[in-house]
Amino acid sequence: MNEKPKKIVLAYSGGLDTSVILAWLKETYECQVVAYAVDLLKTGADEVIVEDLKEEFVRDFVWPALRANAIYESSYLLGTSLARPTIARGQVEAAKRMGADTVCHGATGKGNDQVRFELAYMALEPGLKIIAPWRIWKFRGREDLMEYARSKNIPVPVTKEKPYSSDRNLLHISFEGGILEDTWKEPPEDMFVLSVSPEKAPDQATYIEIEFKDLGGRNGIGRVDIVENRYVGMKSRGVYETPGGTILRVAHMAMESITVDREVMHIRDGLVTRYAEMIYYGYWFSPEREMLQAMIDETQKTVNGHVRLNLYKGNCMVVGRKSESSLYDPDFATFEGDEVYNQKDAEGFIRLSGLRLKIARLLEQSRKTRE
Amino acid sequence: MNEKPKKIVLAYSGGLDTSVILAWLKETYECQVVAYAVDLLKTGADEVIVEDLKEEFVRDFVWPALRANAIYESSYLLGTSLARPTIARGQVEAAKRMGADTVCHGATGKGNDQVRFELAYMALEPGLKIIAPWRIWKFRGREDLMEYARSKNIPVPVTKEKPYSSDRNLLHISFEGGILEDTWKEPPEDMFVLSVSPEKAPDQATYIEIEFKDLGGRNGIGRVDIVENRYVGMKSRGVYETPGGTILRVAHMAMESITVDREVMHIRDGLVTRYAEMIYYGYWFSPEREMLQAMIDETQKTVNGHVRLNLYKGNCMVVGRKSESSLYDPDFATFEGDEVYNQKDAEGFIRLSGLRLKIARLLEQSRKTRE
Amino acid sequence: MNEKPKKIVLAYSGGLDTSVILAWLKETYECQVVAYAVDLLKTGADEVIVEDLKEEFVRDFVWPALRANAIYESSYLLGTSLARPTIARGQVEAAKRMGADTVCHGATGKGNDQVRFELAYMALEPGLKIIAPWRIWKFRGREDLMEYARSKNIPVPVTKEKPYSSDRNLLHISFEGGILEDTWKEPPEDMFVLSVSPEKAPDQATYIEIEFKDLGGRNGIGRVDIVENRYVGMKSRGVYETPGGTILRVAHMAMESITVDREVMHIRDGLVTRYAEMIYYGYWFSPEREMLQAMIDETQKTVNGHVRLNLYKGNCMVVGRKSESSLYDPDFATFEGDEVYNQKDAEGFIRLSGLRLKIARLLEQSRKTRE
Amino acid sequence: MNEKPKKIVLAYSGGLDTSVILAWLKETYECQVVAYAVDLLKTGADEVIVEDLKEEFVRDFVWPALRANAIYESSYLLGTSLARPTIARGQVEAAKRMGADTVCHGATGKGNDQVRFELAYMALEPGLKIIAPWRIWKFRGREDLMEYARSKNIPVPVTKEKPYSSDRNLLHISFEGGILEDTWKEPPEDMFVLSVSPEKAPDQATYIEIEFKDLGGRNGIGRVDIVENRYVGMKSRGVYETPGGTILRVAHMAMESITVDREVMHIRDGLVTRYAEMIYYGYWFSPEREMLQAMIDETQKTVNGHVRLNLYKGNCMVVGRKSESSLYDPDFATFEGDEVYNQKDAEGFIRLSGLRLKIARLLEQSRKTRE
Repeated sequence: MNEKPKKIVLAYSGGLDTSVILAWLKETYECQVVAYAVDLLKTGADEVIVEDLKEEFVRDFVWPALRANAIYESSYLLGTSLARPTIARGQVEAAKRMGADTVCHGATGKGNDQVRFELAYMALEPGLKIIAPWRIWKFRGREDLMEYARSKNIPVPVTKEKPYSSDRNLLHISFEGGILEDTWKEPPEDMFVLSVSPEKAPDQATYIEIEFKDLGGRNGIGRVDIVENRYVGMKSRGVYETPGGTILRVAHMAMESITVDREVMHIRDGLVTRYAEMIYYGYWFSPEREMLQAMIDETQKTVNGHVRLNLYKGNCMVVGRKSESSLYDPDFATFEGDEVYNQKDAEGFIRLSGLRLKIARLLEQSRKTRE
Repeated sequence: MNEKPKKIVLAYSGGLDTSVILAWLKETYECQVVAYAVDLLKTGADEVIVEDLKEEFVRDFVWPALRANAIYESSYLLGTSLARPTIARGQVEAAKRMGADTVCHGATGKGNDQVRFELAYMALEPGLKIIAPWRIWKFRGREDLMEYARSKNIPVPVTKEKPYSSDRNLLHISFEGGILEDTWKEPPEDMFVLSVSPEKAPDQATYIEIEFKDLGGRNGIGRVDIVENRYVGMKSRGVYETPGGTILRVAHMAMESITVDREVMHIRDGLVTRYAEMIYYGYWFSPEREMLQAMIDETQKTVNGHVRLNLYKGNCMVVGRKSESSLYDPDFATFEGDEVYNQKDAEGFIRLSGLRLKIARLLEQSRKTRE
Repeated sequence: MNEKPKKIVLAYSGGLDTSVILAWLKETYECQVVAYAVDLLKTGADEVIVEDLKEEFVRDFVWPALRANAIYESSYLLGTSLARPTIARGQVEAAKRMGADTVCHGATGKGNDQVRFELAYMALEPGLKIIAPWRIWKFRGREDLMEYARSKNIPVPVTKEKPYSSDRNLLHISFEGGILEDTWKEPPEDMFVLSVSPEKAPDQATYIEIEFKDLGGRNGIGRVDIVENRYVGMKSRGVYETPGGTILRVAHMAMESITVDREVMHIRDGLVTRYAEMIYYGYWFSPEREMLQAMIDETQKTVNGHVRLNLYKGNCMVVGRKSESSLYDPDFATFEGDEVYNQKDAEGFIRLSGLRLKIARLLEQSRKTRE
Repeated sequence: MNEKPKKIVLAYSGGLDTSVILAWLKETYECQVVAYAVDLLKTGADEVIVEDLKEEFVRDFVWPALRANAIYESSYLLGTSLARPTIARGQVEAAKRMGADTVCHGATGKGNDQVRFELAYMALEPGLKIIAPWRIWKFRGREDLMEYARSKNIPVPVTKEKPYSSDRNLLHISFEGGILEDTWKEPPEDMFVLSVSPEKAPDQATYIEIEFKDLGGRNGIGRVDIVENRYVGMKSRGVYETPGGTILRVAHMAMESITVDREVMHIRDGLVTRYAEMIYYGYWFSPEREMLQAMIDETQKTVNGHVRLNLYKGNCMVVGRKSESSLYDPDFATFEGDEVYNQKDAEGFIRLSGLRLKIARLLEQSRKTRE
């Protein structure tokens, strides 16, 4: 970046990092800085609210990913990965409205978030300059920030330092770093925010019929503790709480089990690894994500109906599913005769399905005999 | 089958169906019938034992599938799908030893098991004739069998009729049919055999460090209730208990999370759908399963170490993992500076990763401007 | 089929087989038989025309497959595979219009066409009964048919017997069987219909700028001679001439090379094997084909422009491509400096792209040192 | 790189760039520089030979890729992509032997080669420092280099400047840049080195029976002219001549067509896009390439036999294939009856294969009736 920025829109969270960044930007670039804050949280709205993107977040990011049952490395429901493009899109639109030429975020230089923010900026408005202070300045950690803040009289939020960092939005809360770095140690129980432990969950099961409400936390559902692969190339341990998302995903898969064709489901399932990877890596605004989304949305035309779940001490068990569009009909599947399925057909089916295996073995045997 | 069989090897379970089949074969074909029984169960060995294949079952079928984290339609751990080729292989070998020209099984004409048995027969010894009585005779259900047994004085096992059918082996027990056909109804608690319900599981968590023992059932782990897609073309509801297999799979995935390369894991994960499909459909003895197995086994060279799990009321939670071959090193992943990772590298990484997105948008914008 | 059919719609080609089938149906079932003939050929329309489906064929079947660059086993452009669902759809609609309860086709019991016809019937109107004479009657070949025709005074087309069978439509002509069964022998030159051999093609190259016209045959383009895998389980040799389709596919791929995003292209390419398989196997009217089609069509939004080709003696060489929607800009790709791409970015890109490889080796080396 | 390098091993080609780089390294770092040159060319060995890696190149890189029929974006046979890891491996081994701490290459900062060299260095010996002069120095093109060479009295090779750059090895020659940047213009005929144009090829066809010799160039085979997607994010036009490789690939695919199982082939084909991408992007020395290679090599156990080809004016046509391990047997595929295949089996096969399509339509129709 050769030219000096004239007006910077900073993705502002209200925490220590972005508070310091705000001051540092003004000092370093001597230009106007706009703090852009979004509300993806249900609570905490009383702190700083500039834009409430909860509806956009759910409608444009969470639902599309849920339609794919998207999950990263079999575990992570992508709560942060979906929030970042939501914020970036809002920030880019704000930058355009306000005539800013530069955008800025507070993500560090070793994580996934920097990629998610900046790929979104590049895809949506490539003319914007990007400042990522953590990759530029000399500060190396919280201590440096605190000292700088003191020396510059920057008011910083008075939060107790926690032995890990966390990020929360409507869909989940994530934890990483600090004491979590030892993968042989269990996370401390008082770290968790959205869910009780299964041990402390009610002793009675809760049955719900899904109308897609956020009921999971009190039953101890949706905790995940994994070592995951970051896009920037190293492994990292993360702990997540996603109670509502977990329940919705289980319910959605149960709904699909009676309404989606077998081949459609298997082909889609084989692509979910790739789809979740795209989201995790930061490629939400990309033609490849849109391409897969077009396919995934096509599979959902018949997915409607009701699912009943038993929530009990960390378990989210499907106990019933029914649908007007059901492809399941016990008359076809049971062992009694029916008109659609003739048991004798199975002989021909098996004989031709196995023909290539049979031919291969016959030819092999005849070669051995000749030798 | 034009020629009459001379000697038939029947896959014999000791239940009503195969007891009747044995008599029916002798009456219908007037030839020798050998009852081939295998023991894939830990208990019940006192009933009929001809061949104990438990070790082969685990070593040659269960472990290879576990190495892939194989799971069908995100739920089913393939307990029966893995047992069928085990039995079929033993049966074919027995047929060869005894000079039999025909093999026979008691699977019905609407299920997956007929396919699994017969594809294995065809792949292993295509010269054998195959008899599948349920697709040939006139009997339509249990009542017909009982009547035939009475009229022929066939001794049948005196078991109480259950309102569902089940199949058990060392890895799991499955339930289907009867009262389970209504997908809106929860299975009755007294149906389950290997696991208590989460509600009845101990109130204290059990911590285990995996040495791969079968500890799961008492903690209510491993129950699955799904509507699945049969290979023969219809949807079917199945309920499964696989306590040990579930724990092993969770532990294996946690072990892989610190020992397997990111790209290796993602590519493999994208193929597990297809691999599990092969096993479920009956293609264990096929070149395509062997091809994927060669790839999967290649990925496991570094998968060793220890995993610690918390088992509590249906939950199987990973709380620790460590390995001599670990690729996880907190020094690389944390936010402090280190020698391997330079935060400034991230800028170039992101700028080139997003270059195609940026170019596409720039060209689109310049076209719009020209118009 | 227990009930006798009342009215049968026969997919009628005018050849020996369907001429005999027509008579045989009347004799065997004593019911009304409607001959349903379609015209997918450019010429030959003067023989029997009931319905001209050339436009539907191209618009609803050929173009969608071309958008995917669909090809079976790297060679076959699916000319017959696309024609069968076209005919079946027309036939089913005719059956409904005429109140017929049964449909019939003349495909043999060992090929792919029977599957393609019948899966389409089942998917479109599962209530129709299906008669496949070649799987029912006693006749085993052409000789039997000729004799039956003579004995019943059935007028049969007086065509010279060829030492192979062939099938032609607007897109291609295929050859199989007879002298082609020996895979070590080259097909005779006088067999080919739509294309001259490269040796006999004009000595001057023809340059065309694609406006999607059928110019290929005179330049010896589009011949394929392969051993392919049939869906029913055996390998089979087929020879095809698809001059126009080959040129269109080459041109389409060149058009995509400057207008389609890299990731979109690679992901799509990885699915073409599966997409072509679906068409070849007969699953045109299936939710899985529609699902992939939705994705493929999404990729085509920007595919427009001009391609120039050199057609010369069997070669179809792209010599120019340009587009209003081009993503190619020599300013980005050349080795001189520009504003979008900073060469220094490559260092960070490579360092992070290789980080996991570096870490794995470093940890391996440090383990070896410790030992 | 904070510390100064002590000894640098430069991948030296003998051209202008690396001649200047050699002098520049000595001037800039004041340390020992070793010129490491490899011979991957058949001719030209009289110029500079330090190490002859032709056998390693073919055995360890070209053959493994050929076993996969690897091709990038349906066109490019990866000649350069395979040469780079060959050189890098030799260079790293030389660096170790000579106690060097640094490696250097002459690839520019906008291409794929820098990535291929450096990922290989990182994977094989992460302790080595890497210098990429084109990303460091001020020179922007050939003119700057010539001037610097003159000012420093660096002897540079006296080659006529060509209006494009090229790279040649045993497998292929590639051309890019300069006049090739206009994708609407055909490359000039006098640019090509390994192959005559189809127009100038002999008027008689050459028949060969593959014993894997390099016979292609004189028949005008193996030219490719594409716009391809670079790993660093932009599209680029490349022209390639790979006569021998093209013939080998065609022959190999024909050999596989009669010796490889259908499912094995289709699954493998679906992964070739990804495998070729890995090689093109520079990930030869990666666990994911090794994983796919293990699978691919497993598929080749039965691939042996003879293929006969007709080479004529750019065409490489398979006219015969035979093998001791052939899975093709005309007795199975022809329309006459045989013992392995019973035509009646096809009915059951089709009825069950289409069952899910039939059920879906039946349920849809019954819902419509009820409404």
